[in-house]
Amino acid sequence: MKKKIAVLGAGSWGTALATVLDENGHEVRVWGNNHEQIDEINHTHTNKHYLPDVKLSPSIVAYTDMEQALNQADAILFVVPTKAIRPVAKQVNDLLDEKQKPVTIHASKGLEQESHKRISVILEEEISKEKHSGIVVLSGPSHAEEVAKRDITTITAASLYPFAAQFVQKLFMNHYFRVYTNQDVIGVEFGAALKNIIAVGAGALVGLGYGDNAKAALITRGLAEISRLGIAFGADPITFIGLSGVGDLVVTATSVHSRNWRTGNLIGKGVPLDKVLADMGMVVEGVQTTKAAYELAQEKNIEMPITKAIYQVLYEDAQVDQVIEDLMLRDRKAEASSENMGEEE
Amino acid sequence: MKKKIAVLGAGSWGTALATVLDENGHEVRVWGNNHEQIDEINHTHTNKHYLPDVKLSPSIVAYTDMEQALNQADAILFVVPTKAIRPVAKQVNDLLDEKQKPVTIHASKGLEQESHKRISVILEEEISKEKHSGIVVLSGPSHAEEVAKRDITTITAASLYPFAAQFVQKLFMNHYFRVYTNQDVIGVEFGAALKNIIAVGAGALVGLGYGDNAKAALITRGLAEISRLGIAFGADPITFIGLSGVGDLVVTATSVHSRNWRTGNLIGKGVPLDKVLADMGMVVEGVQTTKAAYELAQEKNIEMPITKAIYQVLYEDAQVDQVIEDLMLRDRKAEASSENMGEEE
Repeated sequence: MKKKIAVLGAGSWGTALATVLDENGHEVRVWGNNHEQIDEINHTHTNKHYLPDVKLSPSIVAYTDMEQALNQADAILFVVPTKAIRPVAKQVNDLLDEKQKPVTIHASKGLEQESHKRISVILEEEISKEKHSGIVVLSGPSHAEEVAKRDITTITAASLYPFAAQFVQKLFMNHYFRVYTNQDVIGVEFGAALKNIIAVGAGALVGLGYGDNAKAALITRGLAEISRLGIAFGADPITFIGLSGVGDLVVTATSVHSRNWRTGNLIGKGVPLDKVLADMGMVVEGVQTTKAAYELAQEKNIEMPITKAIYQVLYEDAQVDQVIEDLMLRDRKAEASSENMGEEE
Repeated sequence: MKKKIAVLGAGSWGTALATVLDENGHEVRVWGNNHEQIDEINHTHTNKHYLPDVKLSPSIVAYTDMEQALNQADAILFVVPTKAIRPVAKQVNDLLDEKQKPVTIHASKGLEQESHKRISVILEEEISKEKHSGIVVLSGPSHAEEVAKRDITTITAASLYPFAAQFVQKLFMNHYFRVYTNQDVIGVEFGAALKNIIAVGAGALVGLGYGDNAKAALITRGLAEISRLGIAFGADPITFIGLSGVGDLVVTATSVHSRNWRTGNLIGKGVPLDKVLADMGMVVEGVQTTKAAYELAQEKNIEMPITKAIYQVLYEDAQVDQVIEDLMLRDRKAEASSENMGEEE
């Protein structure tokens, strides 16, 4: 059945998800605050800065006025950068009444600075319980560019509200966009946020001239440290070998499509961080997530050597070549097993 | 301390491991049965067919006479194709007496045809207990080409004999070749063998024009089915998120260096299997392993949809495009969690 959906955020991922929803016959309203970009979507049906080669359907309508985007929406999809989640959620809460009760979905990947909160927690805090019908996280290995080209993509819809997860599954599912439900919101959100740190590391490794063997080692140890932190906060360990764990990690840490990978890669090649971020022209979530995860790990006393190394490079001006070399040569004797649950020695 | 090591098998991996051992100061004897190749190693110090750009140390000596290679060896490293393990082990057993007692290592990745046995099991069967000091599996994400170039590589030495594993760790460990011990021989050997099937699948997927999102989905589901089979045979689940699990899977399934990936890739592009294998000029373990794993899964009633799909393409003349499409669109509703332990629906 045709639904009305407000997509908040007109970046690459928001736009790609809007095309999936539009193709599934839903009424899609994209909201963004850049007038020029919103005009471009409405008049030339493109979003060139974010998805250069994609022609959008004319039935996707874009607004800078959030009220119009939200009007009678059955679902609201948040795809803004992590740091914008709280202010945008406040705006949404002000605009909703207790009759509309849309399902609230987010597809952002990060942790809030200072508070270190997961995105669904921020949404629960800012949108009154009476004003939504459940919060769902959409996450998995999914380059926006490929989704917009209708390449097969598999993704997780995770929620503590099973009906909401199934609603989202139905909303998005089609022959190239395959949605699986999951109840482990904590694991899915930690996997989604933290893999960007490992992607920065993998990019740096390649930028420094290391090969595929070293990258595979980094990804393996990265998965272990992501899992350790997630499990400490109550995630299901199995989630980390699923789509939003190993799946998203692999796609982000091995592909030049990823901004986080590219950021690390340029840093590895010796380009200063400021210049890298200025040139990227899009938000690189991994940079902020590194800080949040580093602080969380300190707090909970969890060993996260890759996160620590990337933190030192990004925030403490450490030499990337030295930090990565120390990391790769770090002495351990035995691999993880069920006995030691992946604790590093 | 300087040791004498017989490296049985002069392919890319055997040669790369010989260079590590030589660099660590050990006396390395490579054995192979191709006279021309053995002469090339001894006289021009190259092995061009297998490692085109590598200059070998003149202190690596190669033999076609196994007795000379084994003479007083402290360790024997098997790096022959899986199908040659049993006949070569028989030869070794005949040549050893009960005084020499070398540590027996293997770095081959496969399962025996018909018997479906793991390689360490074959070695235990063929080499008398009195004639060796433990069997160790060496496995992990490791393109031979990168090891030969001294790129950082991490690898697992797994054994039921802890002293033998530590001996092997010391033998190989240096600043670019990092060895971790592990006791889960079953998990390490299943991970090593089965990832080649997923690599064939990933290659086929790319050959057919699918993107990185689809590949990440395949790798994620591949890891799940490898783990299911391994766990059914007593492997530690944690091993599959380690170096010989996710690590080796990622390196093999995302890199054009891998023969198994290249084989799948050509099949995906429509090249007939016979021609692919003839052109490859090296053993493609994944092809035989697919058959063994498919039969094992049938036997134990374990769902392995990717293995089944690749089996149908390789052995039952199924259309690769149709089989892969069916596989990717296969209907499931919920992702794996600790409740259902990754069983597909």
